[in-house]
Amino acid sequence: MVPLIIGCPLELFKGQVMNPINVGLVGAGTIGGGVVKILAKQGEFFRNKLGLPIYLKRVADVATQRFANLPVGDAACSANADDVLSDDEISIVVELVGGTAFARKLVLDALNRKKHVVTANKALLAEYGPEIFSAAEKNNVSVLFEAAVGGGMPTIKTIREAMIGNDIHAIKTIINGTCNYILSQMSGAGTAFETVLAEAQANGYAEADPTLDIGGGDTGHKVAIMASLLYGGYVPYDSIAIEGITSITPEDIAFAAELGYCIKLLGIIKHDAEANVVDVRVHPAMLHKEHILASVNDVFNAVLLEGDAVGDILLYGKGAGEMPTASAVVGDIIDAARDLVSGPVRRINMDYYAQEKELSLKPHGEVISRFYLRFTVKDEPGVLATIAAMFGEHGISIASVMQKEGFAKDAVPVIFLTHMAREEHFRTALQEIEHKSFIKHTTQVIRIED
Amino acid sequence: MVPLIIGCPLELFKGQVMNPINVGLVGAGTIGGGVVKILAKQGEFFRNKLGLPIYLKRVADVATQRFANLPVGDAACSANADDVLSDDEISIVVELVGGTAFARKLVLDALNRKKHVVTANKALLAEYGPEIFSAAEKNNVSVLFEAAVGGGMPTIKTIREAMIGNDIHAIKTIINGTCNYILSQMSGAGTAFETVLAEAQANGYAEADPTLDIGGGDTGHKVAIMASLLYGGYVPYDSIAIEGITSITPEDIAFAAELGYCIKLLGIIKHDAEANVVDVRVHPAMLHKEHILASVNDVFNAVLLEGDAVGDILLYGKGAGEMPTASAVVGDIIDAARDLVSGPVRRINMDYYAQEKELSLKPHGEVISRFYLRFTVKDEPGVLATIAAMFGEHGISIASVMQKEGFAKDAVPVIFLTHMAREEHFRTALQEIEHKSFIKHTTQVIRIED
Repeated sequence: MVPLIIGCPLELFKGQVMNPINVGLVGAGTIGGGVVKILAKQGEFFRNKLGLPIYLKRVADVATQRFANLPVGDAACSANADDVLSDDEISIVVELVGGTAFARKLVLDALNRKKHVVTANKALLAEYGPEIFSAAEKNNVSVLFEAAVGGGMPTIKTIREAMIGNDIHAIKTIINGTCNYILSQMSGAGTAFETVLAEAQANGYAEADPTLDIGGGDTGHKVAIMASLLYGGYVPYDSIAIEGITSITPEDIAFAAELGYCIKLLGIIKHDAEANVVDVRVHPAMLHKEHILASVNDVFNAVLLEGDAVGDILLYGKGAGEMPTASAVVGDIIDAARDLVSGPVRRINMDYYAQEKELSLKPHGEVISRFYLRFTVKDEPGVLATIAAMFGEHGISIASVMQKEGFAKDAVPVIFLTHMAREEHFRTALQEIEHKSFIKHTTQVIRIED
Repeated sequence: MVPLIIGCPLELFKGQVMNPINVGLVGAGTIGGGVVKILAKQGEFFRNKLGLPIYLKRVADVATQRFANLPVGDAACSANADDVLSDDEISIVVELVGGTAFARKLVLDALNRKKHVVTANKALLAEYGPEIFSAAEKNNVSVLFEAAVGGGMPTIKTIREAMIGNDIHAIKTIINGTCNYILSQMSGAGTAFETVLAEAQANGYAEADPTLDIGGGDTGHKVAIMASLLYGGYVPYDSIAIEGITSITPEDIAFAAELGYCIKLLGIIKHDAEANVVDVRVHPAMLHKEHILASVNDVFNAVLLEGDAVGDILLYGKGAGEMPTASAVVGDIIDAARDLVSGPVRRINMDYYAQEKELSLKPHGEVISRFYLRFTVKDEPGVLATIAAMFGEHGISIASVMQKEGFAKDAVPVIFLTHMAREEHFRTALQEIEHKSFIKHTTQVIRIED
């Protein structure tokens, strides 16, 4: 079964000699460690069942003490990524170093050496996508990035393979585990944002510097990648309207619940086929309790894809963490190995490489949605009617109103839900209202999605 | 771009000549019609973006009047499937005739002519899998069957590609839209099973002969296929324990709701890695309201896959219907076309073809679960205590008890929820209890899953 020819192990699969497929891993931290573990456990299965003799040949990480705790097998381990890049027998490079400076150099170098690249680096692809996918195209190799968008969920594969017969006209996604965990905890116990964040940091659900998560940037990177893949044009990260969850209060969550809603941080992509513009945004949104995304809680993530043929497809799972993300990386290593054996598979790809073509984005002022408003007003007669009238003057009609007892002396919360309104009209009306003397605090605004 | 050489259209993709990939469709009914529509709409995209020049060359259907209403383009249409089979230029045959007699002959014939086959026929694969996958292996072609298991959801692709780095140790699935619709409707309005079924038939959510759906057989076919694919051994359809939903009453649904549960028809696969046996079953089950599957309502389906690396992944979508199923068929046509261009992709496959190896199934008596019981008893003192004592004698402990006012004179429902119990012990105890004179009707038993 395994004849040894001049010291070189040759294996047969269905009567054919299999050439070893050598993988080089750069970055043996949390996710990289998970990848090493899965490759060690599943290697025999990949060889015998898939006919893909995948070998981890080299691992590079500056923190060389990590190697001792990992089942690296015969892999040569070093502190230097160049050891991976300069090894001509390595045909798949797995980039798990994170950040965008060194990772960018590494990925471009690997592609220019005609190595396939597997990465989980959403920031890298969102910010340097055109350059990277252009290098991949030029060198006729693949960049695979399932792990960059929703960790263990098969988001990219579903978009570009399973749903290939569909025009996907919208995506709504809860794709940041930290935010979803914080909002779920605030919702359960009525605890304030800052308290829950501190708890989340203490038990490892939030980074020491949580800015990219709670500010919505991480979700922004992921929707930028999905929108680029879906509609064939680059979506510059800084062109996306992004709001995080830091202003959400337990009171908003409680009021939302009373009205039959929950609050989630959503990434939203909507394609307006007629105008050929794409609405891409990230913000907290109220979802009706019966909405399928409303039951996605804690660190779980979900992607709701709306196709013209298949209708709604939801993918749900853990979007981050050691093993879920490593699972996605390994799925991509197998796809890259298949490409090596069979010749590049024809997938839809980022096709903006040639001319850095940018996608036409819908101006944020033109977005139409419903709004939840929590005004904090002086407790005096006529305020409610004045606000409603001022909205009316701007053509914004009110769906419901709820006045609550105040948190503080002389200041009471008044909740409005609007009907559908154009963002720019809504903002104009709101600005006028906020100039009124009865307004005691900045008004909370949350969009409502269905 | 498209030079004409001796009347033959040759197209270029990235500088390379693309040979046309000719598809033959047998069966132009609901799903087949959907496939014709998608191929007509997306053909240009497949050619220009994927480099896969897919042409629908022939369509066969005995109901030839169907052709007039479909965008068949230049396809040659006839009543005879042999026209598809005998066309040597057709390399992908799509079987959408349903049933197992003619379809079996057709699929085997196509495979023996070295054509790839795409099918949505779950009964065919569940009942004749070994013969079919053996023919595919012998002829080095693929049988693709995403549409057979959960329609538009990418179940098969997720199992054999995205989750390839995982041992999948369990699957729980709501995968029959008719049953889920009926149970959802009964739950909402408290309507009786027969009434909802009649309504579902009237509006097209249930077949005229609904036996295979409401009896659980359709779910059985699907779990048989998934278990075979997952664990590398044939699961004969008749070896699966299957219970349908016909005995579920609105009262059971109401009692379940009071206890915090809903009732769903589940397909369950659990791998006992230690004993290397697989527990495969189909039955109505109580799920806690917070369970992710509890929010899957109406005609929607879902598959919950439990992987050792990725954790829980849920796929949710429409599991049946014209366009969702056609979407899955077209995804498979594209995968088959990729195989044609690149050489067969190395996927995990049904690998029981060689020796018709059967999977070791867990004996049903050894399955351990919790149970909901609704006894209908004579309204007299001591009954509740007697039942509890008799369960106790068989080592089955009771988690909660609920006694309700009766529906009928002298007959009251008593609800028990047990702790974990072995099916055979439970059945022995139940049989003894049912011999007691205070039992007025057959006892309702529903398993509880978490």
